[in-house]
Amino acid sequence: MRTVHTVSELRSVLESANDVGLVPTMGALHAGHEKLIEAARRECRTVVVSIFVNPIQFGPNEDYSRYPRTLDEDLEKCDRLAVDLVFAPAVEEMYPLPQLAFVEVARVSEHLCGKFRPGHFRGIATVVMKLLNIIQPDRAYFGEKDLQQLTVIRRMVADLNLPVSIVGIPTVREPDGLALSSRNKYLTADERKVAPALYRALQEAAGRVRSGERDAMNVRNAGLRVLGEQSVIRVEYFEIVDPEELQPVTIIQRSVHIAAAVWIGKTRLIDNILADAG
Amino acid sequence: MRTVHTVSELRSVLESANDVGLVPTMGALHAGHEKLIEAARRECRTVVVSIFVNPIQFGPNEDYSRYPRTLDEDLEKCDRLAVDLVFAPAVEEMYPLPQLAFVEVARVSEHLCGKFRPGHFRGIATVVMKLLNIIQPDRAYFGEKDLQQLTVIRRMVADLNLPVSIVGIPTVREPDGLALSSRNKYLTADERKVAPALYRALQEAAGRVRSGERDAMNVRNAGLRVLGEQSVIRVEYFEIVDPEELQPVTIIQRSVHIAAAVWIGKTRLIDNILADAG
Repeated sequence: MRTVHTVSELRSVLESANDVGLVPTMGALHAGHEKLIEAARRECRTVVVSIFVNPIQFGPNEDYSRYPRTLDEDLEKCDRLAVDLVFAPAVEEMYPLPQLAFVEVARVSEHLCGKFRPGHFRGIATVVMKLLNIIQPDRAYFGEKDLQQLTVIRRMVADLNLPVSIVGIPTVREPDGLALSSRNKYLTADERKVAPALYRALQEAAGRVRSGERDAMNVRNAGLRVLGEQSVIRVEYFEIVDPEELQPVTIIQRSVHIAAAVWIGKTRLIDNILADAG
Repeated sequence: MRTVHTVSELRSVLESANDVGLVPTMGALHAGHEKLIEAARRECRTVVVSIFVNPIQFGPNEDYSRYPRTLDEDLEKCDRLAVDLVFAPAVEEMYPLPQLAFVEVARVSEHLCGKFRPGHFRGIATVVMKLLNIIQPDRAYFGEKDLQQLTVIRRMVADLNLPVSIVGIPTVREPDGLALSSRNKYLTADERKVAPALYRALQEAAGRVRSGERDAMNVRNAGLRVLGEQSVIRVEYFEIVDPEELQPVTIIQRSVHIAAAVWIGKTRLIDNILADAG
């Protein structure tokens, strides 16, 4: 496995590579990332993992500076998973000039996390565009846990004709249902105990849809009741949205995503589930 | 020469092409475009010309519907200039879905035409991004007449790490100095007679810079006086800006661009000149 830190070195290493799979990450790799890397390893001749904590997707009061950085362990994991190349650039390598060009994906970025993290999806779309242009992969792998990120990127790729296939990989969960996330490290032992309520609430809501409930308000309230049992949980949003543009649905007529963000102490967790209206 | 109308056909034709040069146009080809094509022909193995009047770069009250469309003559010119491939997509081929993803280039898009044509450079950056992703050229050729377009695209390419070289080609002028433009066709015979005043005004202003004037206000006034002699000309802007970000300059300390837009009757003309402060 080779690790490179500059765009020019990366481009020269990949010059004659074909059938390239990219797994873009912010590091702090966990078993969810491993599933992405394993899928890339199965499907592509050359597997590239990028590790970059992207400052422009964090708001001024968010956790950019305390976001976990575990490069040595990340490189070990990548090596063990037979990654060919790790791209781990410094911030100045990715943003040598004041960044003036941005990719925005309207509508899809509007609700859910987009409402509470202004500029977040612009920052993600922009850095993913940069990584796709630097690495020029045939396929790029993203987790379904970050539903809105995945939907924004899929729409960016379609609308801007990017020559890449976007592959979504199912969320990996702890045995008690908590979705894996690098931010789970922030949870205290007590917070960790209540955290699975987020997934239970999504399951409760999805169950209502599957058993025929068509009023999104009732579905939402069923989920919120589960979360309301935990006084330490503060709900940021709990929404029922359409899969293409992530717009709120009032009457459920086909498959919907149920997506939520909650705060447990100082930690923000997100999760989502697809509910088939049959 | 081959002409294709769909993205999939274009991609299959270019699949094994290397050393590709792209000349993106809106058709109505004139001698200025010919210079771009000739440069591409000299420098690239495969030359692609795109012909597409891009609706999303026109404002609601602009000339999208009456913009000249001369596809048959354009194809003849391309054939004569030994173009390999013309890409002439329909609007529905370029925008099959409601377009939600856009590229914005802040600051560079702010002044000059950007002030009077809101959304114009967003529309240009977005369609050029699409064309670059569809065609994947090694080099793309743009005229220096559209200074702000060229500067926006250069910054987009740098900031988003697009794997393409942008080549700027000097403005082609009529013997009396009028810059070639597809929109010159709109001018009546009388309007055509006064139109060269635009270039004369830019030359007058640039001459002041070259002979040592450092106060941008005085430079601007010298240009405006030339335009003021023609009662039929209405000045939209006449600005002195820095070459990197096209921000207005007050004290001239190095090379500047002098750029102007004027209305002559119902026709809007733009032009610019580089003035070296020595």
